[in-house]
Amino acid sequence: MDDRGRQPLGELEILARLRSRLSGLSGPDEVHLGDDTAVLSPGSGRVLFAADLVVEGVHFDLSLGTAADAGWKVVAANVSDVAAMGGVATHCVVGVAAAPGSDLVGLFDGLQAASAAYGVGLVGGDLSRAPVLVVCVSILGETGSGPTVLRSGARPGDELWCTGPLGASAAGLEGLGSGRLGRDDPLARAYLRPLARPAEGQLAAGIGASAMIDISDGLALDATRLAEESGVGIELDEVPVAAGASEEQALGGGEDYELLFAVRAGTEVEASFEAAGLRRPVRVGRCTADPAGRSLRGAPLPPLGWVHDLGAPARQG
Amino acid sequence: MDDRGRQPLGELEILARLRSRLSGLSGPDEVHLGDDTAVLSPGSGRVLFAADLVVEGVHFDLSLGTAADAGWKVVAANVSDVAAMGGVATHCVVGVAAAPGSDLVGLFDGLQAASAAYGVGLVGGDLSRAPVLVVCVSILGETGSGPTVLRSGARPGDELWCTGPLGASAAGLEGLGSGRLGRDDPLARAYLRPLARPAEGQLAAGIGASAMIDISDGLALDATRLAEESGVGIELDEVPVAAGASEEQALGGGEDYELLFAVRAGTEVEASFEAAGLRRPVRVGRCTADPAGRSLRGAPLPPLGWVHDLGAPARQG
Repeated sequence: MDDRGRQPLGELEILARLRSRLSGLSGPDEVHLGDDTAVLSPGSGRVLFAADLVVEGVHFDLSLGTAADAGWKVVAANVSDVAAMGGVATHCVVGVAAAPGSDLVGLFDGLQAASAAYGVGLVGGDLSRAPVLVVCVSILGETGSGPTVLRSGARPGDELWCTGPLGASAAGLEGLGSGRLGRDDPLARAYLRPLARPAEGQLAAGIGASAMIDISDGLALDATRLAEESGVGIELDEVPVAAGASEEQALGGGEDYELLFAVRAGTEVEASFEAAGLRRPVRVGRCTADPAGRSLRGAPLPPLGWVHDLGAPARQG
Repeated sequence: MDDRGRQPLGELEILARLRSRLSGLSGPDEVHLGDDTAVLSPGSGRVLFAADLVVEGVHFDLSLGTAADAGWKVVAANVSDVAAMGGVATHCVVGVAAAPGSDLVGLFDGLQAASAAYGVGLVGGDLSRAPVLVVCVSILGETGSGPTVLRSGARPGDELWCTGPLGASAAGLEGLGSGRLGRDDPLARAYLRPLARPAEGQLAAGIGASAMIDISDGLALDATRLAEESGVGIELDEVPVAAGASEEQALGGGEDYELLFAVRAGTEVEASFEAAGLRRPVRVGRCTADPAGRSLRGAPLPPLGWVHDLGAPARQG
């Protein structure tokens, strides 16, 4: 916490204090904080590059969680994007727009904690003021010699698998909002400190996943996105629901950051994950040849999912 | 312009419309918009990585300029960061937090215009709502086989050069704010559509610049930053002031995005720039051995410069 409480600090003072707290993971000949850009030594393979932002009042509520939670979440969301390509996240930069008195030290603690947890170097950024806290993280990753798994490669007949149960984050938000759950409850934790699944993404890529997406907006919407990009239909027959969550939250709540991937039918998915010491994925359905097909247990897939209009949870239109 | 005026659009509709407008510069085997991350084919050399954000009411005022101007400016600021390393910007991603009714089509037109002008592929991003428009661009660049020029390499005796006159952006903001200038006035243009200097940065690197920084916060503050990072003193004896601007605006106004570089005394700077068809830089002073030295024409360097507190133009210290 900032020992000066809510007294405003100048940007230079804040940057100097934050810089001393951050420790990018430097390779030889690399330069991180303190110059116009970070200087990185690229590995072989392809470079992955993405951005995700979180906004106070939209993605987080400082009456329910802390600035550190917001920092954790935006890094996890970015790592999840890289995981959904089968890649390894390596470096990130952060743009912060903060209201005067924002807990920037807490925010950077959360950014740094998640970066360290996922082995990502936090190597630069920018800071300004704004009426609410906005945190935009951009992430770099690489695929090494492995394949890159796009959203668009699923084929009719492929099975669809999900790396874990869904809906915990939405149930945690609901429980925190009603005061029913404390922040250490597992559901609250799933909302405040979601986990990305990089090992699962790399393994899915390794066993030949034809398409993959991270479930950031609910299974219904993200499965639909994968189907649209691949030009296939989807038949879901199983929704993995987290303990304490509802099927509606699993289908539409979002921010779970599990991975949904397609793979050729008959692939030894469960055995491969078990052998790697990872939780068994759940087979949720299959891809079909009808590009308009979207079903759940034989009925039309409910149009659930987090859609920004800009921002509110809403039904798809 | 958005033909639906200020009627809110859903995120999916906006993304679909924007995606059709954007044309990342794709290499072979590259994937840009529409997946979890962009997939890039790295060149040789080092990777440069940075972020810069602009906030409505801080960096731009939609009563003075357009959303397209804001998009242009944030890309130019990022390209300028890469230029200040002697690098070539290659790809960027953008995080946008926008108020309902924001001119997102105009914003993306400006982002795309600047990206195209500097040969940068706009390859991904994220979109949310917020009370004001916040645009965070992250940029990737590379140095190829050339050197990377840090802020920290200046040595006592090196000359300091600036790639062009300063203060036009601050004078343009003042003139727009008072209603004295229209948006096509050159000073207003310098504020609304600033230019980065990538060719100048690469040339400075090529002739052996020992340190470099882009002048985003005024000559006084950015020269001080270069001196601090290099552990040298600076004696300035010339301030290149743009026509229509004041010396105070040149020293403290910011957002000019010219480059300040240090180079061994006697280097053929002017001839090198002329031979490359670039405007002659101005020799503004020299580096000294006293790390505390900060002077302008023999007097203490005025403590001018754009400092976020968070956000307002302010004196240092």
